[in-house]
Amino acid sequence: MELQECINFLLSTSQNKVFKYFSKLLEEYGVTPAQYGVLNCLWHEGQLFPKQIGELLYLEAPTISGILDKMQKADLVERSIDPENRRAVLVVATPKANELKEKIEKATAELNQTVLQNLSNDEQVVLKKALSTIMNSQF
Amino acid sequence: MELQECINFLLSTSQNKVFKYFSKLLEEYGVTPAQYGVLNCLWHEGQLFPKQIGELLYLEAPTISGILDKMQKADLVERSIDPENRRAVLVVATPKANELKEKIEKATAELNQTVLQNLSNDEQVVLKKALSTIMNSQF
Repeated sequence: MELQECINFLLSTSQNKVFKYFSKLLEEYGVTPAQYGVLNCLWHEGQLFPKQIGELLYLEAPTISGILDKMQKADLVERSIDPENRRAVLVVATPKANELKEKIEKATAELNQTVLQNLSNDEQVVLKKALSTIMNSQF
Repeated sequence: MELQECINFLLSTSQNKVFKYFSKLLEEYGVTPAQYGVLNCLWHEGQLFPKQIGELLYLEAPTISGILDKMQKADLVERSIDPENRRAVLVVATPKANELKEKIEKATAELNQTVLQNLSNDEQVVLKKALSTIMNSQF
């Protein structure tokens, strides 16, 4: 097989390039791409259990736990006891994170525009749908 | 922006899943996905300078150098002096690596088939072309 046909090579190489570029765009706000993922979930849903964040981000519990620890130290999220179940912990974005929301969303829009600049609208739609299908396939 | 529209989220999540699956497929041959990339280049081109391998794999010199060190220790590649320029080093696949070629190529075909199972032929073509375009865009 030609390397350019290998789906792992294509995904790893493009992801590596896009991740580096996104990391650089977010750097001035002190946020990583994974932390942006968490904030996006919280901005849409308000408050969430760590398990729910993991499901939305397709990440396992220990990974989410590590990301949340760093975000708490950086004053981007707070963990608080669920009043309905004192053994459960809810996660919310902090005022500091909320102040960055507009700028971070602008950086994300810039990311998509730049990365997808040489693709037609139809190609962009098929690309996003195909990646989503792969994420949700059984293997 | 919805997370499902963010190109970094889509690429990172699908790459993570595909990389894990490919790593598992290659595990029994003692080869990683990145090492497969190197072997694929050598099987197509015969012998290459490390710099050429880096260009084909879109990886920087220190990264390639680290991968080649591990492959040499695992008896997958050999480095030899270029007879035309005694300061240059050429890389070739070892007999041990060549013996694995057929099985590794079968694993790669299986990877593509499994990962792309829920996409039509047209969608597969657009996906590969779109990822290749992103890899080669200026940003």
